[in-house]
Amino acid sequence: MQEIERKFLVQDDSYKRESFSKKRIIQGFLNTHKERTVRVRIKGLKGFLTIKGKSNKAGTTRFEWEKEIPVVEAEALLKICEDGVIEKTRHEINVGKHIFEVDEFFGNNHGLTIAEIELTAENEIFKKPKWLGKEVTGSIKYYNSQLSINPFKNWK
Amino acid sequence: MQEIERKFLVQDDSYKRESFSKKRIIQGFLNTHKERTVRVRIKGLKGFLTIKGKSNKAGTTRFEWEKEIPVVEAEALLKICEDGVIEKTRHEINVGKHIFEVDEFFGNNHGLTIAEIELTAENEIFKKPKWLGKEVTGSIKYYNSQLSINPFKNWK
Repeated sequence: MQEIERKFLVQDDSYKRESFSKKRIIQGFLNTHKERTVRVRIKGLKGFLTIKGKSNKAGTTRFEWEKEIPVVEAEALLKICEDGVIEKTRHEINVGKHIFEVDEFFGNNHGLTIAEIELTAENEIFKKPKWLGKEVTGSIKYYNSQLSINPFKNWK
Repeated sequence: MQEIERKFLVQDDSYKRESFSKKRIIQGFLNTHKERTVRVRIKGLKGFLTIKGKSNKAGTTRFEWEKEIPVVEAEALLKICEDGVIEKTRHEINVGKHIFEVDEFFGNNHGLTIAEIELTAENEIFKKPKWLGKEVTGSIKYYNSQLSINPFKNWK
């Protein structure tokens, strides 16, 4: 499938009061190439393997394939991932008809919080909550695959 | 799991008379790094996703994880693989208590035929059929991931 999503910085942590779901995520990459990434993730009590293709020019759509796998297998695969395993907490927040996923990063990406919204069309209208900051859709440095190689703490 | 295997060149095609199974394989790589490879394969009527770790020094053991996936998904994933999709026919041959897998390559690797045997211990004894040639276990250029990047037709 293709996923259409837009990505934003988050200005303050007031989103936490509105969150209906909170899960710890640990993830690594078997591959962080621009044209294809292969991600291993443990989210709460489940494991996932996710393959993404190249983005379109605007950075809004991207081929994505995902399979759930046993956590014990995800743990074994995390061990052979590239350096730079990412840890974050994901909050989910209802805003109008949509759900925002807000990721608060830890470790080498501490201080960074990113909100994402998945849309069904590129021009779909959605409500912007007051904690939503600058749009960073299509900015490659905010891809998790890039945060793994060049984490937030190394940015100027 | 860990796989223990030894790899050999094949001297002539007399193995074809002894083969009990023959399947066409099409495969590509999402990642051909030495420390981890991610392979998409269509074998006969089935699809597979296979992740391998780094080999030990002798080249005989390697972490391996594999999941069957629908052929239609394997076809979609092949489209985003690195250049150098590999096509080959795999014969399986009973020799003593073991099974040899013999891969006859096509396309850019035409002329190359490789036999592999999977063992349960590194020092396990096995019968060598007369068509078996030089051992190439641990020689990286014979890895399928490398044949995809630097095919047989380019070798001196």
